[in-house]
Amino acid sequence: MNNQSLPRRQFLLGAAAATAVSLSTEAEPLPSNAHPALPKLRHSVFFWLKNPDSESDIAALIAGLKTLANIDSVKGIQIGVPASTEKRDVVDNSFQVSEMLLFDDVEGQNQYQVHPVHQKFVEECSHLWRKVVVYDSIAV
Amino acid sequence: MNNQSLPRRQFLLGAAAATAVSLSTEAEPLPSNAHPALPKLRHSVFFWLKNPDSESDIAALIAGLKTLANIDSVKGIQIGVPASTEKRDVVDNSFQVSEMLLFDDVEGQNQYQVHPVHQKFVEECSHLWRKVVVYDSIAV
Repeated sequence: MNNQSLPRRQFLLGAAAATAVSLSTEAEPLPSNAHPALPKLRHSVFFWLKNPDSESDIAALIAGLKTLANIDSVKGIQIGVPASTEKRDVVDNSFQVSEMLLFDDVEGQNQYQVHPVHQKFVEECSHLWRKVVVYDSIAV
Repeated sequence: MNNQSLPRRQFLLGAAAATAVSLSTEAEPLPSNAHPALPKLRHSVFFWLKNPDSESDIAALIAGLKTLANIDSVKGIQIGVPASTEKRDVVDNSFQVSEMLLFDDVEGQNQYQVHPVHQKFVEECSHLWRKVVVYDSIAV
């Protein structure tokens, strides 16, 4: 059936791309499916606001989160809002704002926790949220 | 007090680094606190396993997750385990394995969901977990 043959072709293309990655050298251009090397400590935070429909509260939290980029041990940052992906039972897109910070290691995350820019953010913005969940991962 | 003067100095260093970033041009070397530009759709997944203490189950899930890097629309990937960051009330490091996939857009994530490499992963690995939570964010 057509519905099955198309994914099969995509699978073969994907396998070919993976081979290209493993054979590439630094002198060659990056293959299209090359991935950026990311700092290994990933700090993922999801916020549920007291006023989830308040655009100004969401904007204030996002502005506060952007200041965290100035902390030396922060090596990558992405601030987001729920994406319009398909609703599925396992997807929890009930949060209003998310933040991902990347650090080189656990020590970098520890420095961030006590950094005055982070502490100022918590002082100024923590009244905005009713719930926050943090997950810290180290790459394998 | 010494405990206060050190963070203050760190704050000034952080502000100086931020200024350096804003003044830099493409011809100059990247400042040390420059951050990578990340694809905008962030798909964050956390897994709680049926056998949370089974090293072989954890290894099998990680091996399965690594195959997802071969999917064309996946533009970044990081697979992790809980980091040894400080225990705090807001930190949920009770999961066993985490995965972050980056896509250019919602469409890339939609393609991934129906891709045969992803479907094969679900078929072969879903018996390993008792709970999975997904958060999809779009960068702002």
